[in-house]
Amino acid sequence: MSITHPAGFTAAGVHAGLKSNGNLDLALVQNLGPTFDSASVFTANRCKANPVLWSQEVVKDGVVRAVVLNSGGANCYTGPEGFQTTHAVAEKVAEKLGIGAVDVVVCSTGLIGLANPRQNLLDGVEAAYAALSADGGADAGRAIMTTDSVPKSVVLTRGAPGQEWSIGGMAKGAGMLAPAMATMLVVITTDAVVPAPVLDQALRASTRVSFDRLDSDGCMSTNDTVTVMASGASGVTPTPAEFTEALQEACISLAKQLLADAEGADHEISITVVNAASEDEAVEVGRSVARSNLFKAAVFGNDPNWGRVLASVGTTQAAFDPADLDVAINDVWVCKQSTPAADPATVDLKPRHVTVTIDLKAGDATATVWTNDLTHAYVHENSAYSS
Amino acid sequence: MSITHPAGFTAAGVHAGLKSNGNLDLALVQNLGPTFDSASVFTANRCKANPVLWSQEVVKDGVVRAVVLNSGGANCYTGPEGFQTTHAVAEKVAEKLGIGAVDVVVCSTGLIGLANPRQNLLDGVEAAYAALSADGGADAGRAIMTTDSVPKSVVLTRGAPGQEWSIGGMAKGAGMLAPAMATMLVVITTDAVVPAPVLDQALRASTRVSFDRLDSDGCMSTNDTVTVMASGASGVTPTPAEFTEALQEACISLAKQLLADAEGADHEISITVVNAASEDEAVEVGRSVARSNLFKAAVFGNDPNWGRVLASVGTTQAAFDPADLDVAINDVWVCKQSTPAADPATVDLKPRHVTVTIDLKAGDATATVWTNDLTHAYVHENSAYSS
Repeated sequence: MSITHPAGFTAAGVHAGLKSNGNLDLALVQNLGPTFDSASVFTANRCKANPVLWSQEVVKDGVVRAVVLNSGGANCYTGPEGFQTTHAVAEKVAEKLGIGAVDVVVCSTGLIGLANPRQNLLDGVEAAYAALSADGGADAGRAIMTTDSVPKSVVLTRGAPGQEWSIGGMAKGAGMLAPAMATMLVVITTDAVVPAPVLDQALRASTRVSFDRLDSDGCMSTNDTVTVMASGASGVTPTPAEFTEALQEACISLAKQLLADAEGADHEISITVVNAASEDEAVEVGRSVARSNLFKAAVFGNDPNWGRVLASVGTTQAAFDPADLDVAINDVWVCKQSTPAADPATVDLKPRHVTVTIDLKAGDATATVWTNDLTHAYVHENSAYSS
Repeated sequence: MSITHPAGFTAAGVHAGLKSNGNLDLALVQNLGPTFDSASVFTANRCKANPVLWSQEVVKDGVVRAVVLNSGGANCYTGPEGFQTTHAVAEKVAEKLGIGAVDVVVCSTGLIGLANPRQNLLDGVEAAYAALSADGGADAGRAIMTTDSVPKSVVLTRGAPGQEWSIGGMAKGAGMLAPAMATMLVVITTDAVVPAPVLDQALRASTRVSFDRLDSDGCMSTNDTVTVMASGASGVTPTPAEFTEALQEACISLAKQLLADAEGADHEISITVVNAASEDEAVEVGRSVARSNLFKAAVFGNDPNWGRVLASVGTTQAAFDPADLDVAINDVWVCKQSTPAADPATVDLKPRHVTVTIDLKAGDATATVWTNDLTHAYVHENSAYSS
C-alpha cells in the first residue's frame, strides 16, 4: 500500500508510453486533505533538471496537493522546451484535480539530455487521474522504477488505540547508489496533522541521517527529490519529536532498501566513524572512505585493505592524530594506532554486508555512511547504459 | 640518462631483495655539487608514510645532497619501527657518502601497512653506493618502478652554445593515476645554478600545472614526493623565468608519461575548462569531471555522455549560468546552452585520446585536467592487488 496506507491519499500508476517495454511509467499521488502541509528537499546540484526547477518553486509555501512522477526520461538539460513540458504536466494534473498548478510537484527520472514526449505525459495524466484509488500506492511505486529490481516502500503506524496515525513511503532508484538511474525520487505521506514548518524540520532531520548518508560513487544527481505530504486525515497531532522519530525510521528504511538494490554491487558497506569531534566530522570521514574507488575495489576483491581506509581518512580536515587511528573491518581491529594489528586474513569479506569502524579518538560523536563496492558490474552498467 | 644527464650527479639502481621477482628495487641519486640547493613537494594527505615524515624535515633548509628510493614497500602505517627504518637508511647513505643524514631524502613505494625489511635496505644502500656512476640514471629509473610498464624520464637542454644547462628527471607510478601503486615519486636534477628559494617557486609553479592536474580516481597517495636538486655544475645561472619554463616543460612531460602508462586505462582524457572566472575555478570544474565515475565509465563505453559532464559541473561552486553551458567532446559541440546540440553519434571515442571542452562563459581563465576512463581493468587491478 505504501503511500496510500495513510488516510487521505489516492494514487495510481499507469503506462504512458515512455518506457518501450510497456511497463508502468507515470505515477500520480493526490492528497485529499483536510490539510495540505508539505515539505521537500531537492538535489544540491546547481545544474538541476526542469522538474526540480519547477517543483522548488511549488513547495515554497508549504502546500502541495499532488505529486506527478514519470520514469523513462529525466527532462534534464532539455532547455525551455523541457521546462514547458514540466509546466504543461502540472497544469494538466491541476485541471483534472481541480487544484492550482502551483500545488503540483513534478518529478522525472531516466536518461538526461533527452526531451520527454509531452503528449504521452499529458495522456498519461488523464489515465492516471482515471485510475486514482485508495489502494493505488503499489502501482505508483512500480511506475517510478527505472532499473530498480524491486519497488521500495515503507509503512509505519504509531499512536495509542483510537489515536493511530501512520506514515507511508515509496522510493525509486538510488541517487548516487545505482547511478545509471541518475536519480532518487521519494514520496512520503502521513495522515497525521503536521504543520508545514514541523514537516520541514522533521524532513531535514530525517534526510540528514538517511538519504544524505548514502554515497555509492560520489556522483550527485540532477533530479533528486524527496517530498512529504500530511493529509491530517487521522485527526491526530503527534508531537514534533514523535513525528520526527517516525519519519527518520521511514527514511532510513527506504535508504537501506535503495542500498540493498544498488546495481552492480556485491557488497553493502556500512562505514561507522566513532569518537569524532563532531557529527559533521564523522560524516566527512565516513564519506571520504565511501568515495575511495581504491577501497571499494578492494572490498569487491574481498581484500580488507585498511591502508586504503587510512589514506582516505587522511584527506579530510577532521580532528584526529594521524599516528593514532584504529580501524576495524567486520569487527576485526586490523589497525591500531595506525599500524597493523589483527591479521587481515581473519576478516571474512564474502558475506554481502561489510562494516568498517574508524575510531578517531577525538571526541564522542558518531555517524554511519553507507556505500557499495566498486565492481565490474558497476563499470559495465554505467558504460553501456546510454549507448 | 635522465637524472644523470645534468653534470654533477651520479646514480645507481640495484636489487636489494624487496621485489620477489629479482628486479631492481633500490635507487640512489647523489648531488656532487658544487651547489646543493633543492626543493620538494609532498602529498597533502595527513596520514603520511614514514619516508615523507622524515623527508619533509630534511628539505626544510633547502639543502639535499642525496635521494634514496625503494620500491617493493611503501613503509606507510608501520609505526615508530617503520620510521626508524627510514632513519637508518638515511644514516647509512650519509655514512657512505660522507654527508649528514639530514641532507638525505628518502622515498618508498609499494604496499602500505607492511614493514620494509631493514637489513635488505641497508645492504641495498651499500650495493647502490658501490654502483654509483655518472650514467646510472637509467638503472635508477628502473629501480623505482612498481607496476609501471615502462620507466619515465625526461631530459631538456637550454642555453646558448657554451652556456648550456640541462634538466633531467625520472618518475614512477602515477599517484592517483595508477593507484595500485599508491604513489608517484619524481626526482629532478639540474646542473644550473638555482638558489633554493627560486627552485621552490619554480617547482610549485610547475607541479601546479602538471602533477597536480593528474587525477585518475580522486585517491590521494600517502607517499607522493617530488624533489628537485641543483648541482650548479654547469656554472650557468638562468633567470628564474627561464628555469621555471624549463622545469614546467619537464614536469608536464613526466605527467603525460604517467597518464599514458596508467594501469587499466583504455582512454587518456584531457578536460579543458575555458572562459572560467579564475584558473582555480577552471581546475575545480575540470577536477569534478575527472572524478565522475559515471562519466569515466561512459568514456570506457565509447559513450559521449555530456549530461554526466554537466551533472559534475553542477556540483562545483565556480561561476557559471547552469542554463548556459557548452560542452564539446573531441571538438564536437554536443551541448550548447545546456541543451542538446550536435549529434553525439558523430563523436568517435574509439581513439585512446579524448578531449572534453567545457565553456563556462564566466571569464577568460583556462585550465586542463587529465584523467583516464574507468574500466574493468581498473577494478580488476585494484581488487586483486594485495590479496
